[in-house]
Amino acid sequence: MDAHSVRTGNRRALAKAITLTESSLPAHREQAQELLEKLLPHTGNSVRIGISGVPGVGKSTFIESFGQLLLAAGHRVAVLAVDPSSPVAGGSIMGDKTRMEQLSREENVFIRPTPSGGTLGGVAQKTRETMLLCEAAGYDVIIVETVGVGQSEFQVAGMVDFFMLLMLPGGGDELQGIKKGIVELADAMVINKSDGDGERIAAVTQSQYQSAFSLLRNDAHWTPVVMRCSALAKTGLEEVWTTIQSYVDATRESGFFERQRATQNREWMQQLVQAMLLQRLKDSDAVTRELPLLESEVEAQRMTPYVAARRVIELLDKS
Amino acid sequence: MDAHSVRTGNRRALAKAITLTESSLPAHREQAQELLEKLLPHTGNSVRIGISGVPGVGKSTFIESFGQLLLAAGHRVAVLAVDPSSPVAGGSIMGDKTRMEQLSREENVFIRPTPSGGTLGGVAQKTRETMLLCEAAGYDVIIVETVGVGQSEFQVAGMVDFFMLLMLPGGGDELQGIKKGIVELADAMVINKSDGDGERIAAVTQSQYQSAFSLLRNDAHWTPVVMRCSALAKTGLEEVWTTIQSYVDATRESGFFERQRATQNREWMQQLVQAMLLQRLKDSDAVTRELPLLESEVEAQRMTPYVAARRVIELLDKS
Repeated sequence: MDAHSVRTGNRRALAKAITLTESSLPAHREQAQELLEKLLPHTGNSVRIGISGVPGVGKSTFIESFGQLLLAAGHRVAVLAVDPSSPVAGGSIMGDKTRMEQLSREENVFIRPTPSGGTLGGVAQKTRETMLLCEAAGYDVIIVETVGVGQSEFQVAGMVDFFMLLMLPGGGDELQGIKKGIVELADAMVINKSDGDGERIAAVTQSQYQSAFSLLRNDAHWTPVVMRCSALAKTGLEEVWTTIQSYVDATRESGFFERQRATQNREWMQQLVQAMLLQRLKDSDAVTRELPLLESEVEAQRMTPYVAARRVIELLDKS
Repeated sequence: MDAHSVRTGNRRALAKAITLTESSLPAHREQAQELLEKLLPHTGNSVRIGISGVPGVGKSTFIESFGQLLLAAGHRVAVLAVDPSSPVAGGSIMGDKTRMEQLSREENVFIRPTPSGGTLGGVAQKTRETMLLCEAAGYDVIIVETVGVGQSEFQVAGMVDFFMLLMLPGGGDELQGIKKGIVELADAMVINKSDGDGERIAAVTQSQYQSAFSLLRNDAHWTPVVMRCSALAKTGLEEVWTTIQSYVDATRESGFFERQRATQNREWMQQLVQAMLLQRLKDSDAVTRELPLLESEVEAQRMTPYVAARRVIELLDKS
């Protein structure tokens, strides 16, 4: 695999490198890691932005319009996706390039559909490696989107510099689709579809969320903001980008930016160690056979969790 | 160890059983598990209440007053504590019985200080086992308190039926001490010190949090509430208990109560399996020796997390 071709921005080389990291073949895994080690000194030079929101909030349209704005400002943009529910690579609703038709035709844009899960560390691991490859290839804004359901928001929030929630105008009901604990992870909320009849409602929603947000989250390094935009009418997007830049400037100066990245790297490694250890459980026939029974005994309070856990370890050691 | 003595409410037997579960000696661990297995059919018959809040919010006074109310209603109350920062058993600020002077003298109250950490599964594991022992001994309300800093709130929220945050009157600044994601775990917020001059401010705070809460969290099974009380003047405590009872009634009827307990049991088991696997890393001299270097290489982006993680596993397998 040719590290130089990736670095000089050869799209085919980048795409091939990503496919390599996504492979579950051990030989490919080796090659991918060698390549990543070579490219590692050239990674990290980007702003990593996570975008989440419930289906229907207009994420694709937002990224389409926001991406154009970034391109016009001279940036090179990579769009990645984390959708653990996607069964096959390239076939997910998230990764469909036709969703971002204009953006996908741009020279300075690289759109990569959700990788398929199933191997060690799952979708998050692959997305993180893809992010590094895109950075080495010179993309200086990385957008990681997630479907806004399940565990993917936690994973995305743990791999980006700035995490934002895209919201709909109109009260709190739309938050029903957002998992507990996610709102408090957000560095910003952006109320989309603030256009036409929606504009007035969006303004009310904005002030409601703004006061809720300031009550429920206080950080020394950043005060989360609530903005409005219309991805369709292309209004308010400039403010979103200015806010992200302010965040980067402020946290770089305070040192939080680099500290957060270092922490994310260390936690990524710890998660992989755990994944490798848990993989042994999955690979053990004896554990796989007996685990459902042990779990139901524990759930029904007929066996203590400690006794069941020890039994799992015993089965693992025998296999 | 005598299971019968624990069940008949012998305080000395209960205290001895708890000490046994807290021991790190393998032989004691065996005995403790045998005892727990015997008592398991007699556990679960309680309402498990988690209470968190920053230092100074008045947790001890609240539990002192709230406990009296529960006693007057004919309940038997156990008060446990999770404070991972506590270095030694019995010596922590959390476990000091003198904090709850009146309550600790009551026949139908059992107060147990924070266990010391350091063994498998940590403080949470021991608190969970202590909870089961107290239930077997006939305590029908278990209060688990936490200091409101660090990871202990997540642990406590994961072991109780009802999780509440004790707050101070006066705007959002007091939330600074509460970790991200905690607020959204709460089933209720109770603004304490709503007395004298504080009463007016507490009322404003209540309405602020109430709207923030309803915006930021929507669950099918329960709408979180914000209440006011004065633990000192003993006002508003009745409402807290009525609310908890409503929660129990509603979630028992919907089936959520039992489902949540089953999930908590299964997750407890999974956490123990992970803890047992990770314990092997800690027990390995080779891993312990090389891990800090690997972590700093990963943090500084000189080594990929995957390569570092694989190295950890190699070191483990060789040792």
